[in-house]
Amino acid sequence: MSKILDKINELKDLKTCSISELNTLAEEMREVIIKKVDTIGGHMGPNLGFVEPTIALHYVFNSPTDKLVFDVSHQCYPHKILTGRKDYYLNPEKYTEISGYTNPKESEHDTFFIGHTSTSVSLATGLAKARDLKKEKANIIAIIGDGSLSGGEAFEGLDNAADLGSNIIIVVNDNDMSIAPNAGGIYGNLQLLKDTKGQAECNFFKAMGFDYIYLENGNNIEELIETFKKVKDIDHPIVVHIHTLKGKGLELAEENKEAFHWILPGTVENFGKPATQVECYESITKDYLLQKREKDNTVIAISPATPGVYGFTPDFREKLQEGYTDVGICEEHAVAYASGLAANGAKPVLCVMSSFIQRTYDQLSQDLALNSNPATILIWWGGISAGDATHLGCFDIPIISNIPNIVYLAPTTKEEYLKMLDWSVEQNKYPVAIRVPFGNFVSTGIEDDTDYSLLNKYQVKEKGNEVAILGLGNFYYLGKQVKEELKNKLGIDATLINPKFISGLDKELLEELKREHKVVITLEDGVKAGGFGEKIASFYGNSNIKVLNYGADKEFTDRIPLEELYLRYHLTKELIVDDIKNCL
Amino acid sequence: MSKILDKINELKDLKTCSISELNTLAEEMREVIIKKVDTIGGHMGPNLGFVEPTIALHYVFNSPTDKLVFDVSHQCYPHKILTGRKDYYLNPEKYTEISGYTNPKESEHDTFFIGHTSTSVSLATGLAKARDLKKEKANIIAIIGDGSLSGGEAFEGLDNAADLGSNIIIVVNDNDMSIAPNAGGIYGNLQLLKDTKGQAECNFFKAMGFDYIYLENGNNIEELIETFKKVKDIDHPIVVHIHTLKGKGLELAEENKEAFHWILPGTVENFGKPATQVECYESITKDYLLQKREKDNTVIAISPATPGVYGFTPDFREKLQEGYTDVGICEEHAVAYASGLAANGAKPVLCVMSSFIQRTYDQLSQDLALNSNPATILIWWGGISAGDATHLGCFDIPIISNIPNIVYLAPTTKEEYLKMLDWSVEQNKYPVAIRVPFGNFVSTGIEDDTDYSLLNKYQVKEKGNEVAILGLGNFYYLGKQVKEELKNKLGIDATLINPKFISGLDKELLEELKREHKVVITLEDGVKAGGFGEKIASFYGNSNIKVLNYGADKEFTDRIPLEELYLRYHLTKELIVDDIKNCL
Repeated sequence: MSKILDKINELKDLKTCSISELNTLAEEMREVIIKKVDTIGGHMGPNLGFVEPTIALHYVFNSPTDKLVFDVSHQCYPHKILTGRKDYYLNPEKYTEISGYTNPKESEHDTFFIGHTSTSVSLATGLAKARDLKKEKANIIAIIGDGSLSGGEAFEGLDNAADLGSNIIIVVNDNDMSIAPNAGGIYGNLQLLKDTKGQAECNFFKAMGFDYIYLENGNNIEELIETFKKVKDIDHPIVVHIHTLKGKGLELAEENKEAFHWILPGTVENFGKPATQVECYESITKDYLLQKREKDNTVIAISPATPGVYGFTPDFREKLQEGYTDVGICEEHAVAYASGLAANGAKPVLCVMSSFIQRTYDQLSQDLALNSNPATILIWWGGISAGDATHLGCFDIPIISNIPNIVYLAPTTKEEYLKMLDWSVEQNKYPVAIRVPFGNFVSTGIEDDTDYSLLNKYQVKEKGNEVAILGLGNFYYLGKQVKEELKNKLGIDATLINPKFISGLDKELLEELKREHKVVITLEDGVKAGGFGEKIASFYGNSNIKVLNYGADKEFTDRIPLEELYLRYHLTKELIVDDIKNCL
Repeated sequence: MSKILDKINELKDLKTCSISELNTLAEEMREVIIKKVDTIGGHMGPNLGFVEPTIALHYVFNSPTDKLVFDVSHQCYPHKILTGRKDYYLNPEKYTEISGYTNPKESEHDTFFIGHTSTSVSLATGLAKARDLKKEKANIIAIIGDGSLSGGEAFEGLDNAADLGSNIIIVVNDNDMSIAPNAGGIYGNLQLLKDTKGQAECNFFKAMGFDYIYLENGNNIEELIETFKKVKDIDHPIVVHIHTLKGKGLELAEENKEAFHWILPGTVENFGKPATQVECYESITKDYLLQKREKDNTVIAISPATPGVYGFTPDFREKLQEGYTDVGICEEHAVAYASGLAANGAKPVLCVMSSFIQRTYDQLSQDLALNSNPATILIWWGGISAGDATHLGCFDIPIISNIPNIVYLAPTTKEEYLKMLDWSVEQNKYPVAIRVPFGNFVSTGIEDDTDYSLLNKYQVKEKGNEVAILGLGNFYYLGKQVKEELKNKLGIDATLINPKFISGLDKELLEELKREHKVVITLEDGVKAGGFGEKIASFYGNSNIKVLNYGADKEFTDRIPLEELYLRYHLTKELIVDDIKNCL
């Protein structure tokens, strides 16, 4: 059915195509991408907008000698199709066998595992410098979206790349959008450059020291090829600013850029149909913020460019008015900004994905914790995950809980979550992070009357003996299962504890447990290394209590099903009870 | 003796001074600063260059209603002198009783604890937004040096500040220098702006969306006052770019800007005199790099703007030629750049202070570790420290050692260090970090023949029984003392182990220890939370071995003498042996 794509098996097949064939190829690739993404989900808009630039890049440059570094790499599907991996896009049975990001294990045309933003220029600068040290020749091309430019690492990379003194080509893929609309002063300049077809004197890239070239028709293959040919083998750093259309070729995606940045399966057919409203952590967070803001205009929600993750839809953001800031893709600033807000009497609630909070260790520590400013940080999607190695949610506990002064909380129900959230927003002593439960939504219907200001008081849910189970956050429910299994299999009436506080020990309770327990087990939905359980083990080091820590091993896993990971880490009630049995 | 300074007790005293009196005051303050800094050490150049701007800022604005946020805050001495703390600068007996950084506990005029770079704009943006939410009026002023502009957090802050839509004043204190000379493309634009007296069309700050004003005579109080009066109560974001002289008023400091950025006591008198050359980790690192580069031009040393920390003097940097990159103040880029270099076959050796590596957690994890690129990172000044809360070196172990794939090593002698360093540089499988010993320099004279590629093999230095001591890195020597004390006090012949590998367990050895030992103690020169010892405790959780973990508590300490901290944390041979006695 595909006239041209059928013939493209290697990059060399591309180089003999005519422009007309390349245009046909683009249409064919676009169809393939739409079908696959709508079938299994994934990044739609970024890939559709980058079909022609990818074709032109590979037409002009010679990968892998010339090296392409994609930013976030969520726009790499066209690149994968052209570099020997088209089967994974054509054959539905193979759809899930390939990563959605660049992956050096898949192909020599992928230079790095990349999934976080704003890294391509820095990485490419390293590649370029190594080329220079080795006295080799090659074009090093970093591709970066306009959205990713707001990340500090991108700026640092640009600042250093401009100083390189040799070949590096920065392709700025400007589609007028971040995931959500762009936020930040730099976007005024990008707009000015687009309005003036790159002719404006005041030019961010030139101010950074780059040579600069602009292409308005960033989805025109012929013009792209012409442009890239001009900069090929250039002997100094240059920015090629191309204006592209996010979601190109799929009307829905062109018109709903934010909604079609990343989609769930079946979105094309179902878009716009009313979704069933179910209560979830996203919805109760939004309700809380709206209600709170009505009473208190110092409450402010902050998102570092990922509002969709927590369901902060455009209409919700609109309702918050000045009580909402999308800072752009810049988690570092987001944390420091929240600290500043809290220092001056506002009540900031910053939402960040677990995988992205790791960009802010220093800001959490210095800007926030050292200053004891009472900002609230909601950590989303924290937990052992079946996802990509670039987006794992299992490292936030070691990151956050080992920083002094931060209170890190793990609720297990709607009621606990809301109580913790409100306590955090209203208190003025501590920076507080809350690990929003991920997975099942549990509501007890009974208001939580805990006084969280007492700090580090674990809750004994069911008192027993012999074995004590500390089931943290998401894994409280696994703890419940273990308790039942212990009763059924070994006749043990275990104590079940909901620790709630990730960042501190309830020494009094832990001490007390010594009296009637032989074994304490800890369950945490994250990596064990540096986490919650090891601290319990250390506490009991000088005692006769045995401690078994459960959680993930220290490793990057890549798209491994949860069931498999749970077996690997002994995270099932049966395996845990076996371990306990061997230990008693 | 001071005519004007004597009269200045509060900020209001400043406001009634004439320009001529303010000029005299500047001279008096300068004298006071030179004397104090040369007596007890500290930041000389940054403070001398910022005397007049500080006087003018406090003359025009009304702190604490108007709020000043200093970047790094190493230029805050004049500010402290003017805000009720002059005694600590005038009275030698009180010299050390005050922090060298802004500190909200000292004064309401200090808005934050600040010590890391590139944070002021972000923090100030938060203050400004809170002011807007509260519908108050106040000037929010961020002060940032040209050097700090290369940090990504500063860029992120600027990008968001430009969008604020209300009052925020960014004073760019441009003294043509970072700690060392500036590196990065942005500095070309700053130079252009200085050359054109701010008139160049291509203007980084305007490209970022700011209004902009330039002052060439950044140390002229009258002109400064005039300039600040112009922007006071402004209703939109503006950058005030002032050209100042680092080290102003001390000829030596003006002429030797890098050397006088931060000085040791007595530097003014002794500057230029030949220093006695003693072998140390700095010197052997430099020797190694020079020798290596002679044979292999893919070796490259990288510094994120702090070459002085590891003794990378200008002449040494010169010798490395293209084998040295100062990336500017940007640790994030530094790590990604190193990863890119390693990915393309170069041999990067990145040097970072323990306190600053924390800005790179995400880059260590995603850009480097996930990609398993064989870069070498040397961590300097890691350990429990008597220094400022903003520059503690005790958190690097939890940060680095809990990231998968990174091999983190703790040498105890010159020979181990050099062997590890060379192994790391020559291997191509792992990202490797080495915690450069801090404190005493020990050379055995015997070459280390360990094969580090075997990974996670701890070294049994002296085999004994009953008690096993794991003395990590710097604290290996404390372990030796404990062993002696155990022998002397309790007659126990303990096993002494040099773990060498911070990031992995030698499970075979730990298993073996169970046979003839009852107690295992761990000693690490850093915070216990998330560190090395807790993993040992977790390993032995399901056994009869008792484990005692030693290290620092999870807290920010501020200028507390080491002896006091060691007592607090039981880090003396006597206290440890007492603990062991109670445990047996």
